[in-house]
This record gives sequence, C-alpha cells and structure tokens, in this order.
Amino acid sequence: MRTTYCGQVTKEYDGQEITLVGWVNRRRDLGGVIFLDLRDREGIVQVVFDPDKADVFETANSLRNEFCVKVVGRVRLRPDSQINSDMTTGEIELLGLDLEILNRAKPLPLDLNQINSEEQRLKYRYLDLRRPEMTQRMVFRSKVTSFVRRYMDKHAFMDVETPMLTKATPEGARDFMVPSRVNKGKFYALPQSPQLFKQLLMMSGMDRYYQIVKCFRDEDLRADRQPEFTQIDIETSFMSAEEVMQITETMIRDLFVDLLNVDLGEFPQMTFAEAMRLYGSDKPDLRNPMQLIDVADLLKDVEFKVFSGPANDENGRVAILSVPGGAKLSRKNLDEYTKFVGIYGAKGLAWMKVNDRDAGMEGVQSPVLKFLNEDVVTALLERSNAQSGDLILFGADDYRVVCEAMGALRLKVGEDLDLCQGQWKPLWVIDFPMFEEADGQLHAMHHPFTAPVAGVSAEQLIEAPANVLSNAYDMVLNGCELGGGSVRIHRQDMQSAAFKVLGISDEEAQEKFGFLLDALQYGAPPHAGLAFGLDRLVMLMTGASSIRDVMAFPKTTTASCPLTNAPSAANSAALEELALEVKAIQEQE
Amino acid sequence: MRTTYCGQVTKEYDGQEITLVGWVNRRRDLGGVIFLDLRDREGIVQVVFDPDKADVFETANSLRNEFCVKVVGRVRLRPDSQINSDMTTGEIELLGLDLEILNRAKPLPLDLNQINSEEQRLKYRYLDLRRPEMTQRMVFRSKVTSFVRRYMDKHAFMDVETPMLTKATPEGARDFMVPSRVNKGKFYALPQSPQLFKQLLMMSGMDRYYQIVKCFRDEDLRADRQPEFTQIDIETSFMSAEEVMQITETMIRDLFVDLLNVDLGEFPQMTFAEAMRLYGSDKPDLRNPMQLIDVADLLKDVEFKVFSGPANDENGRVAILSVPGGAKLSRKNLDEYTKFVGIYGAKGLAWMKVNDRDAGMEGVQSPVLKFLNEDVVTALLERSNAQSGDLILFGADDYRVVCEAMGALRLKVGEDLDLCQGQWKPLWVIDFPMFEEADGQLHAMHHPFTAPVAGVSAEQLIEAPANVLSNAYDMVLNGCELGGGSVRIHRQDMQSAAFKVLGISDEEAQEKFGFLLDALQYGAPPHAGLAFGLDRLVMLMTGASSIRDVMAFPKTTTASCPLTNAPSAANSAALEELALEVKAIQEQE
Repeated sequence: MRTTYCGQVTKEYDGQEITLVGWVNRRRDLGGVIFLDLRDREGIVQVVFDPDKADVFETANSLRNEFCVKVVGRVRLRPDSQINSDMTTGEIELLGLDLEILNRAKPLPLDLNQINSEEQRLKYRYLDLRRPEMTQRMVFRSKVTSFVRRYMDKHAFMDVETPMLTKATPEGARDFMVPSRVNKGKFYALPQSPQLFKQLLMMSGMDRYYQIVKCFRDEDLRADRQPEFTQIDIETSFMSAEEVMQITETMIRDLFVDLLNVDLGEFPQMTFAEAMRLYGSDKPDLRNPMQLIDVADLLKDVEFKVFSGPANDENGRVAILSVPGGAKLSRKNLDEYTKFVGIYGAKGLAWMKVNDRDAGMEGVQSPVLKFLNEDVVTALLERSNAQSGDLILFGADDYRVVCEAMGALRLKVGEDLDLCQGQWKPLWVIDFPMFEEADGQLHAMHHPFTAPVAGVSAEQLIEAPANVLSNAYDMVLNGCELGGGSVRIHRQDMQSAAFKVLGISDEEAQEKFGFLLDALQYGAPPHAGLAFGLDRLVMLMTGASSIRDVMAFPKTTTASCPLTNAPSAANSAALEELALEVKAIQEQE
Repeated sequence: MRTTYCGQVTKEYDGQEITLVGWVNRRRDLGGVIFLDLRDREGIVQVVFDPDKADVFETANSLRNEFCVKVVGRVRLRPDSQINSDMTTGEIELLGLDLEILNRAKPLPLDLNQINSEEQRLKYRYLDLRRPEMTQRMVFRSKVTSFVRRYMDKHAFMDVETPMLTKATPEGARDFMVPSRVNKGKFYALPQSPQLFKQLLMMSGMDRYYQIVKCFRDEDLRADRQPEFTQIDIETSFMSAEEVMQITETMIRDLFVDLLNVDLGEFPQMTFAEAMRLYGSDKPDLRNPMQLIDVADLLKDVEFKVFSGPANDENGRVAILSVPGGAKLSRKNLDEYTKFVGIYGAKGLAWMKVNDRDAGMEGVQSPVLKFLNEDVVTALLERSNAQSGDLILFGADDYRVVCEAMGALRLKVGEDLDLCQGQWKPLWVIDFPMFEEADGQLHAMHHPFTAPVAGVSAEQLIEAPANVLSNAYDMVLNGCELGGGSVRIHRQDMQSAAFKVLGISDEEAQEKFGFLLDALQYGAPPHAGLAFGLDRLVMLMTGASSIRDVMAFPKTTTASCPLTNAPSAANSAALEELALEVKAIQEQE
C-alpha cells in the first residue's frame, strides 16, 4: 500500500513518485498552499498541496488532525532556506498528487502536544501512544527485547515457556490468585517469577534457559510499581557466578553499544559491605562522587552523646558526607535535609560549613562546634578532605539508620547541587549476607534458593547463619537495580538447612517445596541465574521518568485500566461456576 | 566448566583432552571396563574407564543412572567394529581420566526408557524432560520461536507486550478471572487473545505488531486442550488480506525449510464453500485423496426416501465417498463406520461394494441395491470413478450433517486404510461466511471484529447478514488449523452494524466495547492480522501426539499440575483480603 515509511523519505527519493500512509500531524495553509505534516511510526514528512489539482486540493483542505490518509506524491528537494537538519526528512518534501482519506477523526479528547493527566493518557492510550516520544519508546523496547533474544540465541540459551497458572510462590509479595472452575474452591497463583520452574528446567537438563516473561505482584502500588511487569529471566547449569556475571554483563554492554552507542566499559565489582560503608546503599549511584566517611574513631571521646554514643556502640555508626560547595546552602535547605533524614529514622542532622579550610576552628561554622575541640575538627577536615566552601554532614545512629539516612541524603544532595558526573555508571554488588534480620526473624536477602559462597556446609549454615555470605550478585546502574541473581542451592541437605534457618518447618517445606526437595535428589546439576527487570532497563535507556511510559497498556496507581475499565464486577453466573461469593464490602480502602 | 556438549564430540576432537558434564544415561561393566553413556541436552557420548586409574575407576564404579557428573578424558577413535553411525558421537569414545560426582541420584521413581502414565510423567516432569525425545522437542520449540522472531524482526514487526490482567474478552470461551485486592469485589480477566489490544496498537500507529503470547481459556479440557496456550500473534496496518497471507505463508514455508528441510511449496487457496463441498470440513486434510462427490441429482427420483428426501430438499445434501480398495472391508468394519457417523448425527450409512466395475448391477453389492435401478448404479459408478475393489459410502441428510459426518468418515477411513499421501499438505481456506446460525441466533464465524469482503456496506450487512462473506483466512496444515486471521473492521458504523447483527444491544456494545467504538472514530487505520497456535504448530512439526508433549509444564486433563499440586486451597487470610468466600462445594463434578 505504500512505498516506504514517512520518516524514511530522504533525498535519495528525489524525483520519484511514491505512496505514503499515515496520520495528519498538522495542517497549515500558507499563501494558498496546504502544508501537511504526515506522521507514521518512523517519523514525519512534509507534504505540499498546490491548488492546481483542484479535487486533491479540496480533499487536502478538508483534512483535520489525526485523519488517516494515503498520499501519492513526487519527492522534491526543499529550497536551501527551508532545510530542516533536525529531521531525517528535512531536506525534502512531497508534492501531493493524489490523496485518499482512509479514515476520519473527530476532534481529539486530548491535545497530543500538551502534557495530559495520567488518567486521560491511559484512557486514550491509543492516542497517547501516537505521540512520537511514546511511539519511539515502544520501538526502542522492541529493539531491546530483540537484541536480548539474539544474544541469548547466540549463546545457546533456549527460550522455554513456564506456566502462568501455577502454585503460590514464596517470593514474599502477595500472589494474584486465579480461582479454578474445574477444581472448585481451589486457586492457581500467577507467578511472581518463574524461579522454581527455571530451576526445574536445569534439573531437566535444559542447560541454558532464558525467557522474557510476565511476572505478577499484588502489592500496593506505591511509587513506580505495576501489578504485572516483565523480566528477562536467565538460568544456566554448570556455570559459576563469575561466568553468569560475565555473560550478562557483556549482554548489557553490547546492548548499550548497539542501541545507544554508549560503551559502559568493564563493570566494577563491590561487596555489599563496601557498598554500605561507602554509599549507605546496596545499589549505589556511582555518578554521585560523594562517599560516606567513617569517623567514629575521631568522635569516641567527644562530650556530645549524639556522636560518642554510636561511636562507642558496636552496632552504631558515625559517618560524614563532605558536600562539595555545600557551604552555600541556606539554613532552610539544611532544615529540609534534617526533615528528610528523619524519614529514615535519623533523629537529627548535624552539619559543619567549611568556610575557610586553613583557618582551623575559626574557619568552620556548626551548631555542634561547641562539643568539638580543635584536634577533632582538624582530624575531621583532614579525613573528609573538605575544601573551603564545602559542607560536612554527620550521621550518627544505629549502623542501619546511618546507612539508610545518609545514603538517601547523599542522593538528594547530589541531585540538588547537580554533583553527578558521567551519564552511565554500572557496577556489580556481590557478597551479600545470606540473611537479614527483621522482627526477630531471619529472612533470605535474595530468596530461599540462593546458595552460600563456596565452602560453607549445611551444618555451618545452620550454626551461624548470620555470618554466611551468599553467592549472589546484583547488577546496578545509576543507583537502580537492573538485575539480580545467584548461584542456587543444588543439594537437598543445603536446601533443607536454608529452610530451617528461615523458620520453615519440615512440614511446611514439604507442603510448599516438596517437589523441589524431591527434585534435588535426582542428580540436580549445579546451576545459577539472574533476572533483569525489563521495564526498568528500558526506562533507564530511554530516559523515561516512569515504567508506565515504557509499557503499552499500564495500569494506574490503583491497579486499574481507564481504557478498558478493568477490573470490573463479575456476573453472578460466573461466580456461581467458581463457587465464589463476593462479600459485602463495608468500606472502600 | 566444560569443553563442549556431550552430543557434539566428533572425531575432530581425536587425541584432545576435554571436559564434559552431564548425566549418567547408562553404565555397563564389560570385561572389567566400565562403559558410561554420558548425556546432556545435545546428545550422548560414550566414556570408558579402565581399571589402571584405581580411584577414578572406583568412582566410576559407584555411579548410578542419572548421577550428575563431570568427566575429564581423552578423545579417541573407536575401533571400526564399534562405530555407531546412528550417533553424532558414534565414531569416538572418551577415555576417562578424571571423574567428579556433581550430584547423586536416588533410584528414579519412573523408568525413563518405558512409557509412563501421564500423571507420573507430569509429577516428575523434570525427569521426563530428560528423555532425549522430550529434550529435543523443547529445543525444537525454542528454535521455532527464535526463527519466527527473526522473521518478524526482518519484516519490521515490533514485539509489543499486551496486558495479562485485563477485561473480560468476547471470544466465546470462558475467561479465567483474577480477583483484585486493591479493587475489592472486582475482577480482571486473563486474555483469551490480545485481539482488541493489538487492534488498539494499530490505532496507535504501531503499524506492524507481533507477540508470542500466552492466552487462556477456562474450558473443559476434553481432547487436547490446555488452559493456557501460546499464540504467535500478528497484526498489521495498511495491508490487504493477500499481503498478510503472503507474509505469513512465507514465514511458515521458510520455517519448514529451515528446521525440517521441507519445501511446502505455494499454498493452494480454497473457499470455505468448496472445502465443505469437497471435504465436508473447513480444515481439510489434503493428504487424504478422497473427496465428497455430490449425487443428489442422480438420486432425486429413487424410491428410497433416505436418498430422495434430502436430494429434493434445498437444505439437504446427498454425497458419496469412493474408497479405493474399500470393498475388502468386513461387515464389522462397516457397522463400526455406521456407528461412527452416528456421532455426527447421521441416521445410518449406506454402502455399495464395487466387486466388478464392468458388470453393472451384477458387479455391485449393497443393502440398498433394491432401491436403485441399473441407470442409477451406472451413473453412480461413472461419477464416482470407482474401480473394482472400491467401496462407495453414502451420506444423505441435512447439508451440515452430511458435511460433518462424511467429512469425519473420510478422515477415519483414510487413516484405517492408510490412504494418505505426502507428508505435508498446507492450504488456505478463504471466503468464510461472516456469520453462522446456531440456536436461532447468528454468531460470528471468526470474531465480531472481522470485516466483510470489500464492497459490502454497513447497511448491506444489516440487511442480509447471512449472505455476506468475511475477509477472513485460515491456514490449514494436514487437517489442522495452524492459524486464522482476517481483515478487521476499521470503521465505527460497520462495527456497530456487526454488533447489531450479533444481537448485541447498543448498551451492551457500549459497556463491553465502548473503548473500541470510541477508538474507531479517531483515524483508525485499515488493519488486518492473524494468529498461529504455537503449540499445535510445534506438535505437528515434531510429530508429537499431544500438545502436552511440546510444553515444558502442561496441566492434566483436569487442569491440574501433579508436580506443584496447583491449583490448591487458598488460605483464609488471602481470601479475606480479596473479600471472597468459597462456597461449600456440594458435590464434585
């Protein structure tokens, strides 16, 4: 029906008669001539209608925005003065010879050139997606998955589909449940990830598996979450953690070269302990040059309990952040930061402005100066390497509170003062603890199938679980976790020990994971894997500000779809067939 | 961890020391030497352990079936007498130098060399998948999807993901429903197909879309159905039916060349009417050479009401099937066929054995011969082109009953007598009626979004819906529908007319499809598409006898998973959160 895409007509077509189809992006009348911006998936081209062809001109005159049309025309070069070098098609225009309206459009319910409300954008998603920015994101996403698949193919990974209707999974978040009609009163769960199935595939000898797969979590949709999201899911047998990291790092590096022409270089590796120490985060944004600097040893003996307390507590931490040029911040700014760290449990925020680096006590300004002597100040300045004009911020509390509060503050200050350097800063975080404690109970830091580092026995795991590191690895880019994975447990005794540590009784383990424990007894191979969050990867690569902007049909923050009105009430016959009853809903939460 | 796959060690490795990992497929002790068949995804290789290396030999001696091991060995050529030309690795063997047990295996709960029950196979799916036949099917399936994706990429189709949590779809079968926790009392539906979303993507200007996507139908699982299945889903804007057929036919043809080295040739096209006339089926198996032959005109005047009734009824049909070599069938066979056509509503099955083609009435044998005169018999023999030794079977009833009964009988007799010719017989069936009548109501033969053939107006559709043909096309291979598609309605007036014909009130249309009717008013492009059933395609290509054998983790015929025990009871807290109550189940159906 067409010769090429609108966005691909270049001066190579000069003189040719071609056919294009697309949408009217804009129509202007200039001096008795009609200029049309015709748009399709690949871009926009300018079409000109002269009045000599009366019938065609009349049709052109009747066009409105978003009419779908077919144009036959002759390509000609634009006069030099009208060349638009920002557009692929900017050197040419099409002289319209024939014009057919394929479908009309009513005036649109939203202006595609304005910023519309999220609700409106989702209700008329089919129009919102016509905006070139959105179209290009969808095209880009498709290129990402296509690249990943080709890479996986090349490395002998098999695409295997795992079930969507399955058993409740143990990933921590809530499962979506699907009532069964054939087995009334029973429910399937939608997978939070294909974790156990991909491990079973390794036990089936599939050797290398990948899948780009929908996963589901019925969580409250605070922040930028979606009830369904997409994972690039990878699992291999007979590979070490290092090999999995190497093959997936190369994939991401090649992807960035291919689609963005960006060389990410080799990814540095950092232990979890070091990431917490330097950045207060297990997913540090390395574009931000600031690091946390431990100063407990310098403040052990000061009069100020806020400092000396945590400095002398083995579970405490005292750390500073030296903010380049931060001395210019106002009291109001500092009050705001004090409030900000409060969100993370910090009880306050001490600060010290370095007005003159070489003037000792005289050169600094701080509400807590009265508690510090000259030696301490000098030592602080030295260790922080603060310069005149910098600001030192103090975190002193439990280790975890300091990490979280100062880690978050580091990011906020970095953004406020525009301190970030470089566009892309990837790294691996490794050597995570196997478990973390919360509410007096150990939880798996990754998931219960993660193997400890080599050399740890099942007995050792049970004896001192808190000390054991896992063979897990997270890929982090610009402060976002792009993906995470681990070597998996492939021996039954170790898996049972891990369940025991997690407080899962033998009975519960058997009921929930009996099939896994069974499968481990029939020659399960050593295996390891990783999963990337596709939505977030594409969001980062396209510079979108929300994962909703890289999904064709996302849900709102209340998990609904304004386009189709899903979810909706079920009819009573359907409920009857499922043996279900909806209870009267007292109050909407 | 390894040099190559077991199944890929050829004589090019002769003399090299290599490392392999895999599973013990078989261990034999022959004359003090241990022979090991080591298996991985790619095949089997023979490993030999001599007693000279005592410790390695001892380890080898302790191996049992399905142990997972790592072997270091030197490749050597087998003596000529031991060459196995059926195996890729049949010219070599590995002399085992070192051996590590990566994981032990208990005695297996099922014998992988025997035919196990479906229940056992699914309960221990991770073992069942180790059988080379099953492994190869999974590998093959992966190659199919990989090929399709590359083909789609090459033709500028974008992979766009559509939602899994969506609104009830109108495909006819029951939806799986997913209760919403955030919107208590409301339900999402799992998609039966992404039909409306892919049409909306066309309205978004995505131009060419594809997705390999899970779809769901909560139907009773008679025959070879699964609650979740996979579709190769395709949609394009600005393409005619012919163009869609051409691009998808080429894909399938190229796929067969690439993976099976089979050239399917150009696919013939047949109208629905002709398919029913010649084969009594809209998905004829052309490997079977028999055709239905209409003989109503010859039997209009016979005394036998069973023939003359339908022959004189404009809704009746009288047709014969001439079975080559069928005269040898016994009375028992014929009784069985009579019972068989009864399933399809036929009240009996008249037959005529042609013992001697040239002997007129004398040469034939039939229970209905007394109703026929010489002229009729001669005419029947002539039209059927029956030869001595053939059998003529008669169908006389309503048009539909004759088509269904004789169409099914044709397949059965063809199979019983091994009449099929050629391995692969693809075709397109086109020119379907828009609607079919059932229970006094018109139903969409494809789906309600299918466009009529060109030139039909909305008014004409409403006036005489039963006469209108749709612009739909089914791809059929060996009697299976591989895929089906159509040009879609892209104008609101036509879509409203189609809903009206289907008895959908304006109100219902607005409630269920309001967003589609809206979207059609904003410059919707002409569009068309097609969907293939991936499971069936792979089943046919691999020669598997069930789609379960080409899915990694299928459900049983009662929609359950013996491996994970899904579906299972939900805990009451979860139900509470969903505001749901499971009603006491009186009796299990």
